[in-house]
Amino acid sequence: MSNEYVRIHRRNLKFFVQDVFITLGLPESDASEAAEVLVAADFRGIPSHGVGRLWRYVNGLSSGLMLPEALPETLRETPASIVVNAGGAMGAPVSAATMKTVIDKARSTGAAFGCIRDSNHFGIAGYYAMMALDADMLGVAMTNTAALGVPTFGRQVMFGTNPLAFAAPADREKAFVLDMSTTVVTRGKVEVYERLGKALPPGWAVDKTGRTAEEPASLLVDMFNRIGGGILPLGGEGEDFGGHKGYGLAVMVDILCSVLAGAPFGPDLCDTETSSARVSHFFGAVRVDLFRDPADFRRDMDVLLAGLRNTPPADGSERVYFAGQKEFEREAEFSRDGIPVLRKTYDQLCGIGKERGVEPPNTV
Amino acid sequence: MSNEYVRIHRRNLKFFVQDVFITLGLPESDASEAAEVLVAADFRGIPSHGVGRLWRYVNGLSSGLMLPEALPETLRETPASIVVNAGGAMGAPVSAATMKTVIDKARSTGAAFGCIRDSNHFGIAGYYAMMALDADMLGVAMTNTAALGVPTFGRQVMFGTNPLAFAAPADREKAFVLDMSTTVVTRGKVEVYERLGKALPPGWAVDKTGRTAEEPASLLVDMFNRIGGGILPLGGEGEDFGGHKGYGLAVMVDILCSVLAGAPFGPDLCDTETSSARVSHFFGAVRVDLFRDPADFRRDMDVLLAGLRNTPPADGSERVYFAGQKEFEREAEFSRDGIPVLRKTYDQLCGIGKERGVEPPNTV
Repeated sequence: MSNEYVRIHRRNLKFFVQDVFITLGLPESDASEAAEVLVAADFRGIPSHGVGRLWRYVNGLSSGLMLPEALPETLRETPASIVVNAGGAMGAPVSAATMKTVIDKARSTGAAFGCIRDSNHFGIAGYYAMMALDADMLGVAMTNTAALGVPTFGRQVMFGTNPLAFAAPADREKAFVLDMSTTVVTRGKVEVYERLGKALPPGWAVDKTGRTAEEPASLLVDMFNRIGGGILPLGGEGEDFGGHKGYGLAVMVDILCSVLAGAPFGPDLCDTETSSARVSHFFGAVRVDLFRDPADFRRDMDVLLAGLRNTPPADGSERVYFAGQKEFEREAEFSRDGIPVLRKTYDQLCGIGKERGVEPPNTV
Repeated sequence: MSNEYVRIHRRNLKFFVQDVFITLGLPESDASEAAEVLVAADFRGIPSHGVGRLWRYVNGLSSGLMLPEALPETLRETPASIVVNAGGAMGAPVSAATMKTVIDKARSTGAAFGCIRDSNHFGIAGYYAMMALDADMLGVAMTNTAALGVPTFGRQVMFGTNPLAFAAPADREKAFVLDMSTTVVTRGKVEVYERLGKALPPGWAVDKTGRTAEEPASLLVDMFNRIGGGILPLGGEGEDFGGHKGYGLAVMVDILCSVLAGAPFGPDLCDTETSSARVSHFFGAVRVDLFRDPADFRRDMDVLLAGLRNTPPADGSERVYFAGQKEFEREAEFSRDGIPVLRKTYDQLCGIGKERGVEPPNTV
């Protein structure tokens, strides 16, 4: 571990974040849930969605873009479904509560689904999908995001990175947890290339004319000003590598999150200095025993997952992973040694702590 | 329309295929359903899954690989689910019947799902997903296929092209119908490159060492003999373009089709001269009114879909399409002018007709 990082135990990091949220007006249970989700991202090795984003939540809650005491309102409810208006609340607490409701409903009906509208960033989609695992259920979670993706043959942004997550339980193996954006990369990757002064690989993005974008700086400016250009869907440019498939998946996520909930979608989702994304989410839980004995299912999942991680690697590669495997391995390492946090991020956390009157978390 | 093609009216093509199936021992209703699905592929402009495959079904049914009179057996059933053993029957009739059951169940429970095991090729996944549209439901259909896909960082085939379909209804716009394999291309595309003597584009396939495959002929031989190498998942080679995402989607389809149904999966699915694929399928239907008034949903779908097809195209491109739009446009054209069928395919149909004592379909 280089000097660039400090290590912090999960529990300490979580309580720090929770205490910061409490000073910003969140009820304790919401603060705890939101901290849990944020820290889970770092714990699973997905720091792009972790405490490095805390300052955004602090800004959002301080400025009133996110409403700390918004009370979610149920707009429609059936034995198999719920639609919730988050009313501009933080995404994580209302998402965790809704996924719990969905799982409870699925206990009675076999399968249940939920939508949340008028919400904010909810962290990693996989967190909610995984909530279904202990209940012997398949879990699904999706969210739309501020628009930055360009459809196949287009030039304007028409959808977000629109991640989808799917989780299925195993027995001795860790669970299968797919958690993927439906664009080829996220804006963060383009920003990294800009900082490094590197040209973008063809297949990541198109410029304002709809042609291959190579220059990250002008792309980011044109995207920010909605002049044109943006990230490509999974499968890249045109149809030769299946870009139309990723485009279709991104729109599917938009339909399930927003059109089902009667919320804004596509290019109407936009983060600005003065407005929040007002994104929508979709959750699902399906009981495995609708189809077969969950113990048998888990055993076959073991066979499937062990087969994948033991398949011979390509020349020059070390291993083959199944979806979620790397993240579980990081959890094991980080629960022993602490979670690595960039020193730069740690300094930021200390700054937030000072401002909010919260003791920064101890490092290992 | 070049001289390479003849045009046949949908009705004539369907009755020809149906009559051929009847001579092979299929009950009339099954023959009708199977013909409907096969011709639907040509009608929607997906000839790779259409009557060009009739000879395979004829061979399968004549040789006993597909069992014309197999009676599907229900293995498990709840108000929200059904698991069916197709017993080696043709895929289409049992799939259409199961999707109908799933839709009926969803009328009562809100959402319902079905698995079929021990089946055969079922045609285009989109056909079954679209069955939900008139019932104001979202439709889902998936199937696994004989293994030909290599996981990210691997070198052996571990999953099939594993298509998934998702359909959502609109009002004035045609429906949104995503129907996509989760590999970057299918084996058919590699075969086309072999015939043309062209090198494969990097990102389509890896060879037996797990490195970029350029030479289609040796790849096909090594794949056929299971020596190594195969098609890459959507997103291509490695993780830079999201290949791990397509890999995850392919495995998700395997889980939903086979692991849920207790059926063979992954590399155990293999077409040979003496055995059928024994693939599994997954179907789902979810009522839109669980979430909102279907009329409002359809109107917002119109806004979404019209927005996508009217977004400005890239320089050098003519139009942007939403998923399913091209197929609906072809349906409109082909129902007026007849379905174009390759003359080579038509000659094959005439040969089959002669052998089975069925009059070939009239051309337009």
